[in-house]
Amino acid sequence: MKIEVMQVLHMNKGDGETSYAKNSKVQNKIISLGKQVKEEAIMQMLRTNIPDIMGIADLGCSSGPNSLSVISEIIDIIYAKCRDLGRPTPELTVSLNDLPCNDFNFIFGSLPAFYDKLKKEKCSGFGPCFVAAMPGSFYGRLFPSRSLHCVHSSSSLHWLSQVPAGLESSARTTLNRGKLYISKTSPQCVLEAYSLQFQTDFSVFLKSRSKEMVPGGCMLLSFMGRRSTDPTTDESCYHWELLAQALMSMVPEGLVEEEKVDSFNAPYYAPSVEEMNLEIEKEGSFSVSRLEAFEIDWDGGVDVVCPTMATQSRGQRVAKTIRAVVESMLESHFGKEIMDELFKRYGEMVEDYLSKTGTKYTNLVISLVRKE
Amino acid sequence: MKIEVMQVLHMNKGDGETSYAKNSKVQNKIISLGKQVKEEAIMQMLRTNIPDIMGIADLGCSSGPNSLSVISEIIDIIYAKCRDLGRPTPELTVSLNDLPCNDFNFIFGSLPAFYDKLKKEKCSGFGPCFVAAMPGSFYGRLFPSRSLHCVHSSSSLHWLSQVPAGLESSARTTLNRGKLYISKTSPQCVLEAYSLQFQTDFSVFLKSRSKEMVPGGCMLLSFMGRRSTDPTTDESCYHWELLAQALMSMVPEGLVEEEKVDSFNAPYYAPSVEEMNLEIEKEGSFSVSRLEAFEIDWDGGVDVVCPTMATQSRGQRVAKTIRAVVESMLESHFGKEIMDELFKRYGEMVEDYLSKTGTKYTNLVISLVRKE
Repeated sequence: MKIEVMQVLHMNKGDGETSYAKNSKVQNKIISLGKQVKEEAIMQMLRTNIPDIMGIADLGCSSGPNSLSVISEIIDIIYAKCRDLGRPTPELTVSLNDLPCNDFNFIFGSLPAFYDKLKKEKCSGFGPCFVAAMPGSFYGRLFPSRSLHCVHSSSSLHWLSQVPAGLESSARTTLNRGKLYISKTSPQCVLEAYSLQFQTDFSVFLKSRSKEMVPGGCMLLSFMGRRSTDPTTDESCYHWELLAQALMSMVPEGLVEEEKVDSFNAPYYAPSVEEMNLEIEKEGSFSVSRLEAFEIDWDGGVDVVCPTMATQSRGQRVAKTIRAVVESMLESHFGKEIMDELFKRYGEMVEDYLSKTGTKYTNLVISLVRKE
Repeated sequence: MKIEVMQVLHMNKGDGETSYAKNSKVQNKIISLGKQVKEEAIMQMLRTNIPDIMGIADLGCSSGPNSLSVISEIIDIIYAKCRDLGRPTPELTVSLNDLPCNDFNFIFGSLPAFYDKLKKEKCSGFGPCFVAAMPGSFYGRLFPSRSLHCVHSSSSLHWLSQVPAGLESSARTTLNRGKLYISKTSPQCVLEAYSLQFQTDFSVFLKSRSKEMVPGGCMLLSFMGRRSTDPTTDESCYHWELLAQALMSMVPEGLVEEEKVDSFNAPYYAPSVEEMNLEIEKEGSFSVSRLEAFEIDWDGGVDVVCPTMATQSRGQRVAKTIRAVVESMLESHFGKEIMDELFKRYGEMVEDYLSKTGTKYTNLVISLVRKE
């Protein structure tokens, strides 16, 4: 992974107003949409073999309530299955992975309560469970050979290991003028650079996991993608399009330099189902047992809106969610001081846009099995 | 572990003036004193069997330059031995352990540089190395069964899992008036409570590690202790004695309440060699292959004094070292606002004391082997 992405890509830390911990309801919704697929895959794996020690990893765990709730869910499924079979659970070793700049301290703060809850809820027959952190890029090896039985990753794999080659700000080209990601106006070479970077990254990801997982182990991936084969489709691009527009609206007022917008491209890619399947086939160690594409409202939908959010417009809610994710990256390029104004404008543009269209995100959920 | 100790026992965070990262030269000296014992023990272990995957753990890693330098040392020993044997190194899984309130983020920040250095220094034949964090108390299970080959712990095991039963501030007794730890004036019951707490804790520690380690695995422990059988001896008590005096000197001025001093007892114990050996024998899973007692100057000795420290008095240097370790605990009991004044007075008292006596710390270094 490129050192720059390593240093600037992290969800907003702590639990303040603009933190990821306070603004990750959409990601939580995505996790819950994948619940059934998760349950099915883990049950299937446990049908053939329950090991004495079971390795579980969450890749791109970030830091907030979602980090440990995914783990709780997985543990619950294993516990229920073992109880059905009348046998004790294996020793569980859980590894939470994210980049080294992730706020792991924040997760660790809630570990004592997490262990207490486990102890209270689970009766006898629940073996020891150890939660560790493994900082590093999942585009490379993270774990010992054949040590993982269940791998999970949600809302992370759409982040690339680097800005596509040739589009970095250091390249000093302006191939993608006034845009932050693929857009209808982007030249073909930009589309190709993005697709190529995804192919490289996703294949390294699969190769690394194939070494780390036991045969028969299950992997559950969920990330932003698209149904359309066209990479410029609104479902995968328009939230970046509006963010670019918000930045460009600040150029005439001298708040943002136009060259800064020209030279920034997000290390992000929302692949099509075909692109993803092609890489899985090429790598060859995994078989796909299930694939689903979900539509998600930009604000997660009405059911995630809690009372404190109800006073905000939909545009504001979307802006807060996006801010918690991309601020660290934008801040290092455009400067801290414009962030409040940028996301204010972005919120207004999103509100306006959503009042006219029904564009939603597409989230791909895929369940893989490590071949024997 | 008692929840209170879990929450307040951590070295000073970050890398500011009073941080542990900037004030851990004494602990670094202690690590280097144990180097030969470490080398001998690891070499001995590798003589009989080199596994494919090797588990290494550092218990009580804290957060600062020492956290990763210990690991570097251990990796270097393994790498050298494997090169001698003309075989590749095993896959190394390194677990850094400390309480959840430890500043793990700070360690993770230096991981990319750590991996870069490894890559540069080690040639072919150096297998993958994965550094994870395992937050939790080492007075209990932390790792899966038989997963560790080499366990290291330095400057940590003198911390108890709790203030000895009956001496907690909530017990509202004043058995140990005007003192923070065992003192010449402490009644016998205080001495016994401390010794008993050590026995309980150390035996839980050994029992937990005996399950986690493979037969033949080595464990290297280094912590504050004493040569004398008398628990009130200056070598193990006097740095606490002076800290109590510094606090008591603030009572007449109304800066500290006397009852606060009466009700505080440190969750600390410096055992004698005999006490330690007795617990190892009782537990029964480990054999002692080497035991040494080193004397350490309170400021680590002249060789650790770097240019920026040379302008400070010995008393000030000692005060900074102690402050980086105990401040979190004292702060939560006595309040943040008196810390500067307290450690100013403490520094002066230490300076005065050391000009009259040659009292040093005693550090025990012990190398154990998990029996077959």
